[in-house]
Amino acid sequence: MTQDEKMMLRCLELASKGAGYVSPNPLVGCVIIKNGKVISEGYHQKYGSYHAERNAINTAIGKGVNLKGSTLYVNLEPCAHFGKTPPCVDLIIQHKISKVVIGVKDPYHLVAGRSIKKLKQNRIKVAVGVLENESTKLNKFFFKYVKTGLHYVTIKTAQTIDGKIADENYKSKWISSAESRRFVHNLRAKYDAVLVGRNTVERDNPQLTVRNVKGRNPYRIVIDKNLKLSLRKKIFSDKFHDKTIVLTSKSANKGKVKTLEKRNVKIIFCETKNGLIDVKDALRKLAKLGIASIMVEGGAKTYSEFLKHKLVDEFMIFIAPKIMGSGISAFTEKINLDNYKRINYFKTDRDILINIKK
Amino acid sequence: MTQDEKMMLRCLELASKGAGYVSPNPLVGCVIIKNGKVISEGYHQKYGSYHAERNAINTAIGKGVNLKGSTLYVNLEPCAHFGKTPPCVDLIIQHKISKVVIGVKDPYHLVAGRSIKKLKQNRIKVAVGVLENESTKLNKFFFKYVKTGLHYVTIKTAQTIDGKIADENYKSKWISSAESRRFVHNLRAKYDAVLVGRNTVERDNPQLTVRNVKGRNPYRIVIDKNLKLSLRKKIFSDKFHDKTIVLTSKSANKGKVKTLEKRNVKIIFCETKNGLIDVKDALRKLAKLGIASIMVEGGAKTYSEFLKHKLVDEFMIFIAPKIMGSGISAFTEKINLDNYKRINYFKTDRDILINIKK
Repeated sequence: MTQDEKMMLRCLELASKGAGYVSPNPLVGCVIIKNGKVISEGYHQKYGSYHAERNAINTAIGKGVNLKGSTLYVNLEPCAHFGKTPPCVDLIIQHKISKVVIGVKDPYHLVAGRSIKKLKQNRIKVAVGVLENESTKLNKFFFKYVKTGLHYVTIKTAQTIDGKIADENYKSKWISSAESRRFVHNLRAKYDAVLVGRNTVERDNPQLTVRNVKGRNPYRIVIDKNLKLSLRKKIFSDKFHDKTIVLTSKSANKGKVKTLEKRNVKIIFCETKNGLIDVKDALRKLAKLGIASIMVEGGAKTYSEFLKHKLVDEFMIFIAPKIMGSGISAFTEKINLDNYKRINYFKTDRDILINIKK
Repeated sequence: MTQDEKMMLRCLELASKGAGYVSPNPLVGCVIIKNGKVISEGYHQKYGSYHAERNAINTAIGKGVNLKGSTLYVNLEPCAHFGKTPPCVDLIIQHKISKVVIGVKDPYHLVAGRSIKKLKQNRIKVAVGVLENESTKLNKFFFKYVKTGLHYVTIKTAQTIDGKIADENYKSKWISSAESRRFVHNLRAKYDAVLVGRNTVERDNPQLTVRNVKGRNPYRIVIDKNLKLSLRKKIFSDKFHDKTIVLTSKSANKGKVKTLEKRNVKIIFCETKNGLIDVKDALRKLAKLGIASIMVEGGAKTYSEFLKHKLVDEFMIFIAPKIMGSGISAFTEKINLDNYKRINYFKTDRDILINIKK
């Protein structure tokens, strides 16, 4: 591993500390070195707050360091535009940093190479593409969102070897091991939102929060076309109910809509198609809220809707070493996985996690 | 790793060369050292031929070595009885070997510690239990057979993530990857027999031989209560048909029985129970032929029969990253896996192999 790669790896490490807090912004970490020594570090900590580069530069200045002759490492091209904060590229130029090493070009149309050009115009050396793959992977949510305007969608399921997510009476509460569930809670802390269908809330009354691990709660999205669910369900009545979003339609019970709105539960009215909520329309409306990543946690009907509309970027399939013989299947239709080239397996206690990505 | 463990590991390595050729005898390897140096090695190569100890001793003598003062390593207690060859324990005593290091005690009732006792009576030092676990695992077929008189039975299946072994029309020929299939062929070379139900032969017309890897063909066993299968099926008509065994009943077509017997296909008449071949009775009759290990390769009905009668020691479940949505399930009944404590996962190309053992 070269010195550049080592520094970039540190940027990625720093960047990932922002996971769950910066969306729909990207995860960015920054390291500044001078005379071969790290003089400061920074990362984007929270949506709306300073970018990684500004944090690192501020730290260096605070130490009284003259940045002339220094090299700045950052996993994503610095911003060129006024967003919530002024452009980082100008700050770099202003402080006479000599060289900028970038993981990957920012695909966002207001940046997209402009900063790289501007740095070069100001005679700052620029290297792009150090740990490019890793830098792209780290910001998979951001890249999908910026390029398509849609969310990064992951289907998460926990099933038996024979593909069952529950027994026929939905009485089999925990299919997967404690370690697998902890893994899922860690994922929830990183996704902007988790989404389930009405039946899942009806039957399991899940909390869909982050428990047993550190991290913030995601938005909890439920699809309920007619708003038939009892408002006593946990997602509507626990102390996190302001992080609940209901995807419903015009046919929703008006009284319930009013009650939920009073509780600060967000109601989104979506188009319907073949008697179901049009998930494509729903996603477009959710994207406008700045939600860039969604983990779909069930059930079978909801998986099917996302799959039919080709909206799924990734699968996280936990398989527990159990055989039910009969029960409810996670998948009820053939899925063409030809475009999903990256398949990885992880052991979580007695379970196996199959991770399938494009 | 101690010197004893290193030598025992070499014994296990040598022993495993006999896999597929020595059954129902155990796999045994032997190393003799003198003054800290290996002077000879041997293993049991073929059923009926010399045991590992005799091979190693003969090699040493051939080299003109005086075995007085030497140490003999062997993964299984030497035999004490006259079988196809005279007892190894007497040979060891006769050659004044000073010390014998044994992996695991032989559970066979005609040995079962007798050799250990006899060696000690002859003032030969004995150490038992070096790499005992590994030594037991290597001979799992032999241990099961000797202790229970029944076979070691492994269910092997290749399925999709959603637990399907074929589509509804049985048109989906290869579920698993080429590497997984190669793995299965390697397994076939080590099991005494592979077994399938009538439907599998009817639909897939499999060869059930060892291909693309080195190794001998196993016996091919088919359950066909009324002998309805066409005698043109590969297992009855290819050049290995003398390695085919049919488990049938009194209601078998007499003409077909005659034809098959002329072709040297072995016919075993079994009891029936609830209109099916009684697999327990079938196994008892197969055990008498010296078959100690069986890999059951399908289909669902056959798996179910073995599982219902609690005859399964191990599962080898290959999961291919495909989702069919509908089709034929490998398992149609709930299976209690509480007694199967050892669960391991292996990657084979794009597939995952779940290995479940007691």
